Amino acid sequence: MTADPSTPARLTQYQPTPGVIDLAWGHPDPKLLPVRELAEATRRAMERHGSDILEYGSTAGSPPLIDFICQRLADTDARAPSPAEVVITSGASQGLDLAATLLLSAGDTVLLDVPTYHLAISILADHPVRLEAVASDADGIVIDDLAETVSRLKAAGERPRMLYTIPTFHNPTGRKVSIERRKALVALAAQESLLIAEDDTYRELSYDGPPPPSLWALDGAGSVVRIGSFAKSVAPGLRLGYVTASTEIADRMATGGLLDSGGGMNHFAATVLSEYAASGDYIRQVERFRAAYRAQRDRLLGGLSAHLPASASWSRPEGGYFVWVELLGGITADELLPVAASRGMAFLPGHRFFLDRDAAPGALRLAFSMHPAEALEEATEHLGAAVDQLRSEGG
Amino acid sequence: MTADPSTPARLTQYQPTPGVIDLAWGHPDPKLLPVRELAEATRRAMERHGSDILEYGSTAGSPPLIDFICQRLADTDARAPSPAEVVITSGASQGLDLAATLLLSAGDTVLLDVPTYHLAISILADHPVRLEAVASDADGIVIDDLAETVSRLKAAGERPRMLYTIPTFHNPTGRKVSIERRKALVALAAQESLLIAEDDTYRELSYDGPPPPSLWALDGAGSVVRIGSFAKSVAPGLRLGYVTASTEIADRMATGGLLDSGGGMNHFAATVLSEYAASGDYIRQVERFRAAYRAQRDRLLGGLSAHLPASASWSRPEGGYFVWVELLGGITADELLPVAASRGMAFLPGHRFFLDRDAAPGALRLAFSMHPAEALEEATEHLGAAVDQLRSEGG
Repeated sequence: MTADPSTPARLTQYQPTPGVIDLAWGHPDPKLLPVRELAEATRRAMERHGSDILEYGSTAGSPPLIDFICQRLADTDARAPSPAEVVITSGASQGLDLAATLLLSAGDTVLLDVPTYHLAISILADHPVRLEAVASDADGIVIDDLAETVSRLKAAGERPRMLYTIPTFHNPTGRKVSIERRKALVALAAQESLLIAEDDTYRELSYDGPPPPSLWALDGAGSVVRIGSFAKSVAPGLRLGYVTASTEIADRMATGGLLDSGGGMNHFAATVLSEYAASGDYIRQVERFRAAYRAQRDRLLGGLSAHLPASASWSRPEGGYFVWVELLGGITADELLPVAASRGMAFLPGHRFFLDRDAAPGALRLAFSMHPAEALEEATEHLGAAVDQLRSEGG
Repeated sequence: MTADPSTPARLTQYQPTPGVIDLAWGHPDPKLLPVRELAEATRRAMERHGSDILEYGSTAGSPPLIDFICQRLADTDARAPSPAEVVITSGASQGLDLAATLLLSAGDTVLLDVPTYHLAISILADHPVRLEAVASDADGIVIDDLAETVSRLKAAGERPRMLYTIPTFHNPTGRKVSIERRKALVALAAQESLLIAEDDTYRELSYDGPPPPSLWALDGAGSVVRIGSFAKSVAPGLRLGYVTASTEIADRMATGGLLDSGGGMNHFAATVLSEYAASGDYIRQVERFRAAYRAQRDRLLGGLSAHLPASASWSRPEGGYFVWVELLGGITADELLPVAASRGMAFLPGHRFFLDRDAAPGALRLAFSMHPAEALEEATEHLGAAVDQLRSEGG
């Protein structure tokens, strides 16, 4: 992990591989990021708030940003939170980490419907909890399997305490859970006293109509902690996200040691973002992302149709960053990756998104967020050529 | 914790009490915060780095800020870290939280030499560990008591895994651990495989000469995780701090789920801070804080001499934010606080800084960081009058 000291260290987590169109990274296209607008918002926020922007911030988070989140969710979700139901976090990752620290006990079991976001698995695995997989299908988490798993674990004396799930524009598959299944899920959670950590990172990136209601909005029992993010709707480097939860859970987070000691997470950046949002820049930026990513998704899907064999299938996401490809014919993602890289494209093998690394050997995740449409189409050409090469070598 | 909806929410954690000079808050004087300089640094950082400042940042933290930390510690400590020994955090609080998540196992015991920073107790108590107090005296942690406690716990089958300690300009007492005791402490830690979480928040606020070497600098065994902060040297609202540790521990932090998922903590603010530091503003700001706080400390100590009875005693800190006052004559901080508040000053009762809330009933912490010298002197007058009132009522 340590950089070669002879090369200057990069500012970004993304490390380009020369000659490779790398679709492994779920990062935004840097050319779309609102550099000028955020520089201006910083200037205005410093003028408006003076030293208040640099002092220890209000523990639940910068009040004008909380107010904006409440207003925005009134437009983009089926229920708006009250300010007391919101806590600002340092991105969705830190929201999940905070929930794991404060809401779980050592030895609890966390359920995850797989495939799921591979780094959420890492965040949870850093806590002293057991992880247990639940099945999913093309419509998302399989409710019957969840119910059976909870019953089985309870009968065995385990404590299934939390479900981590991504119902909207899922990572890695891009799928969207139906409204019926959402309702069944929150009903089961309430009945089983199961907390749901709902990763709602991609809500704003909806390309074919409005996003579905969140689990949080549908829940009446205080079972859902929705984890939102500004990484995909504004810029990941700001490290800003939020949680909406019952006032009891929000209060537990805001009065925990971390926020009591440090004040609100990322107070400076949060207050800058509130100024940015108040100007209308936020909504303009979301529309900019949507238009660009919609075109990128369409071009990627078109390229897959043109270049992959008939035996392959893939998801057609209505939002988010990702397309999930399943190859048939015995080709594995692990053997495909070096061939694809040598031809000029890369992806993440699908088994990375499971607890069982032997799962789904023929699946892979393609991110269409970071590269322009023509590069995406070119990448599908390389992918198709790599598949053809392996098939001809295998046959 | 929920604000009255009829009053506009405050941006800051600090809530002023009208008519009260409140010395309970360990916050910087807002008038000293570098608003204009940070606004300018943001503009320059955006120009220099463009979208790289808004993308997911390098997991260990923004490289130019890491380089600055290495350079600065070469000047202010006895050993400079290499870049691979540094991880940027979202403030010292988050550094401690991350260390607790990644370096402790459920059921481990964390030792704390009391009194100690009350909100570090809260951060650690949010993790599934046992907390155990170790004694301290005017020179800091009592090494023999630490050695005995570790032996006793190990003999009882416990796992004393970490010591949290603040050797330099301690919160709440302001004291500084001697060099001999520092050396004995790191030797004992290495011998007992005890990790030291060294809270080094106040290193830059040294008023009477250079600060002592950190435990991290004296350690040769990889036993120390030093937790640094920019909250006291620049501005708390930025939420920036750092850890220096062995490359193994630094790598564990940078490759943990939280940073792998989110990229470096507070990438935007960290890169702004690197620009600020490179201009020389950092060193100018530290000198500005030192000059102001030195004068504030002197005025507070003068006021205590003038207004407290001969039976009281207090620390004379060479750095940091705090003076620790011990009252004799049976007056408790809890009974004194409402009387003092009614006369126009407030403080934190000393028992807040212990695991045992019955400890040190006659002690109190005064923060001299947030208020100008004349207000501090006035506060000591009110404090003295409150003590006199209680003494006369008691007698």
